Amino acid sequence: MIFSDEYFMEIALKEAQAAYYEGEIPIGAVVVCNNQVIARAHNLTEKLNDVTAHAEMLAITAAENFLGSKYLNECTLYVTLEPCLMCAGASYWSRLGKLVFGAKDEKRGYSKTAKQILHPGTKVKTNVFADESIALLQKFFKERRAES
Amino acid sequence: MIFSDEYFMEIALKEAQAAYYEGEIPIGAVVVCNNQVIARAHNLTEKLNDVTAHAEMLAITAAENFLGSKYLNECTLYVTLEPCLMCAGASYWSRLGKLVFGAKDEKRGYSKTAKQILHPGTKVKTNVFADESIALLQKFFKERRAES
Repeated sequence: MIFSDEYFMEIALKEAQAAYYEGEIPIGAVVVCNNQVIARAHNLTEKLNDVTAHAEMLAITAAENFLGSKYLNECTLYVTLEPCLMCAGASYWSRLGKLVFGAKDEKRGYSKTAKQILHPGTKVKTNVFADESIALLQKFFKERRAES
Repeated sequence: MIFSDEYFMEIALKEAQAAYYEGEIPIGAVVVCNNQVIARAHNLTEKLNDVTAHAEMLAITAAENFLGSKYLNECTLYVTLEPCLMCAGASYWSRLGKLVFGAKDEKRGYSKTAKQILHPGTKVKTNVFADESIALLQKFFKERRAES
C-alpha cells in the first residue's frame, strides 16, 4: 500500500523540515485528493509577516485554487501538528473530508476549546508520525532559546 | 469627534456594500491604527474560490503587510458582522488591540463556541451599526433566494 496516511504525512514532514531551514516554526501540510497531492505548504508567518500564513491556511487556499472550488469535501488535509482554531475554522468552511494530523497541540490545538469546531462531515485521524513532528518542533524551539 | 467607532464602521459598511455589488456575502472590514485606516477589505470567497478570503482575514493580512509586523496590538479591527472562529483565531495570533463589530452572528459567531477565543489583550465593542449590517445581509440573501 503506497498511498497510506503515513506516505502523505511524510510529505507534510518534509514541508515542516523546509520551514525549519527557513527559520519558521516547523509545521507542514499537504492536501490530497484521489491520492494526488494537490497542495503542499509550510508555515510562513515570519517571512510574510502574516499571522494567517499557517501551513494549513496556505495549503487550503492552494488546494481550492487548484480545484477551482471552495469545497474540499473529497480531500484530506495532512498536517504535522493539530490545527489551531483559525485553521480548524478554515477547514470547517471548506467542508473538509478528512483531517489527519501528527501530534496534538496541547496549548493551541482546536480540540482544547470545544468539541464541535470541525465540519460535521470531517473525519479525523491523529497520531501519525507524532514523535517526528514533536522532535522537529522541540529542536527548533531549543535552538531558539539557546540563541536568545 | 470625527474619528469615532461609528466613523470607521461606516467605512467597513462601504466595503460590505462593495461586496454586495460583486455578488459576495456583504461583509466589510477595516483596520485602523492611530486613527489611520491601514487596511480595508471585503469578503471575496466567491471571486477567489477561497474560504479563507473573509473580509477580516484579508484586512489583517493587509494591515500586517502595511506595518511590516505580525502584531496588531495597537490597532482596531472594525467588521460589520461578528467574526467566525477562523477570523477570531487570526485576530488572536495578531494580538489585536480592539475588535469592534456590527451585528452578532447567531449562527457562526466566535462567541457562540467558547468564552476565551480572542487574545486576552483584545478589547471588544459590539452593536455599532448592527441594523445597517443586518439589513444589507438580509437583502442579499433574500435576493439570492428569489433567484434560485
